[in-house]
Amino acid sequence: MSVALVGAGPGDPGLITVRGLELLRGCDAVVYDRLVAEELVDGAPADALRICRDGLDQDAVNRLLVELGRELDVVRLKGGDPYVFGRGGEEALALSRAGIPFEVVPGVSSLSAVPAAAGIPVTHRGLSDRVTIVTAHAADGSEPDYAQLATAGGTLVLFMALRRLDAIASGLLAAGLSPETPAAVISRGTLPDQAVTVAPLSEIADRARGMPGPALVIIGEVASLALATERRRTASVG
Amino acid sequence: MSVALVGAGPGDPGLITVRGLELLRGCDAVVYDRLVAEELVDGAPADALRICRDGLDQDAVNRLLVELGRELDVVRLKGGDPYVFGRGGEEALALSRAGIPFEVVPGVSSLSAVPAAAGIPVTHRGLSDRVTIVTAHAADGSEPDYAQLATAGGTLVLFMALRRLDAIASGLLAAGLSPETPAAVISRGTLPDQAVTVAPLSEIADRARGMPGPALVIIGEVASLALATERRRTASVG
Repeated sequence: MSVALVGAGPGDPGLITVRGLELLRGCDAVVYDRLVAEELVDGAPADALRICRDGLDQDAVNRLLVELGRELDVVRLKGGDPYVFGRGGEEALALSRAGIPFEVVPGVSSLSAVPAAAGIPVTHRGLSDRVTIVTAHAADGSEPDYAQLATAGGTLVLFMALRRLDAIASGLLAAGLSPETPAAVISRGTLPDQAVTVAPLSEIADRARGMPGPALVIIGEVASLALATERRRTASVG
Repeated sequence: MSVALVGAGPGDPGLITVRGLELLRGCDAVVYDRLVAEELVDGAPADALRICRDGLDQDAVNRLLVELGRELDVVRLKGGDPYVFGRGGEEALALSRAGIPFEVVPGVSSLSAVPAAAGIPVTHRGLSDRVTIVTAHAADGSEPDYAQLATAGGTLVLFMALRRLDAIASGLLAAGLSPETPAAVISRGTLPDQAVTVAPLSEIADRARGMPGPALVIIGEVASLALATERRRTASVG
């Protein structure tokens, strides 16, 4: 039997891949993240074992996948893409070491899909030819390297940054980024209750206060494109 | 009528999104990139207008989408994700200015899916908590900023870099990156004839010489994970 690490995409259930949905519909067990759309978990067969990983630490998830994978065809359904801040690599290594066959089915990462849903391309000719993706917390719990981020150029995409946006904006301003740098916060991107705030970097923390998570923070000239395209967009939520 | 900018994913036709395939199956016209899988273009209705964009410059593509979008439901099928080096933002702006309703359906970008298909997670706890994505050519045709890239930390993902890998590796080494930094070239990632070369940065250009494009270049500690997981992977190409 085997385990598939499947990216569920950024939220909208229509953004799972065809291959991911096919595996989900044929699995014996699904182990899913809390933020994955209910419609997707419902896509597993009626008699499939369903386990939400909430409350399990990463080591327990790894062991669960190894045990289930010995006997069953398992789908590990993860938000976004398994390998972009998804810790899929740790699950893959655990499966590999245990000799369990596995497959990785990449997903649409929030990193571009969520800005896209707000009318923001993370790259744009003449505005941004590079993208830097970081989490608000380094793996060791330390602060991001603001000096490095302030000189990175292009577009900054920050995961898990909403609750620390005050500190992050201050850190980037102190490191030399212009207060006028366009910034955007996209809350619950690609979902029906998506909300977008666009403001200069110096004001974004105040303006985005109280927005619900999960949220993605975009800093860079491309954020200024949000309004130009947003007016004409049709719904992308199926 | 309307236009949907649809990401076709990294190559494997099973990696299009459910929403993208649904739109493709119902469209009147499809305008597609040369590198998009034939199986996907075949997914449009038999009587749909099919136009390969090869030989059209970006301005002509923009005008074509505006003209077709006035009368038809159009799918603009783009490799990878429309907004990650896909120039989707320019097409969106052209449609917005012309008053044509449009939708962006994000796709699985090569940036994580292609390394994943080689067993490489672009982020991995303890190895990499940030990702920098660049093209080998800046928008103005200048060289990448090697000093900045060499100090970026985390994982570097380079698009369209295969033909210039000698210059890029030399630039990064001269800017201070260690010759031992793990690097990988993934040629035709997620396709049946995918090939992977892993080598230290100082040797990667020689070792990857002659690999066919399209290819993605990964530089950073995560490249060393390729072999650890590759042995046990089952095929991800459906």
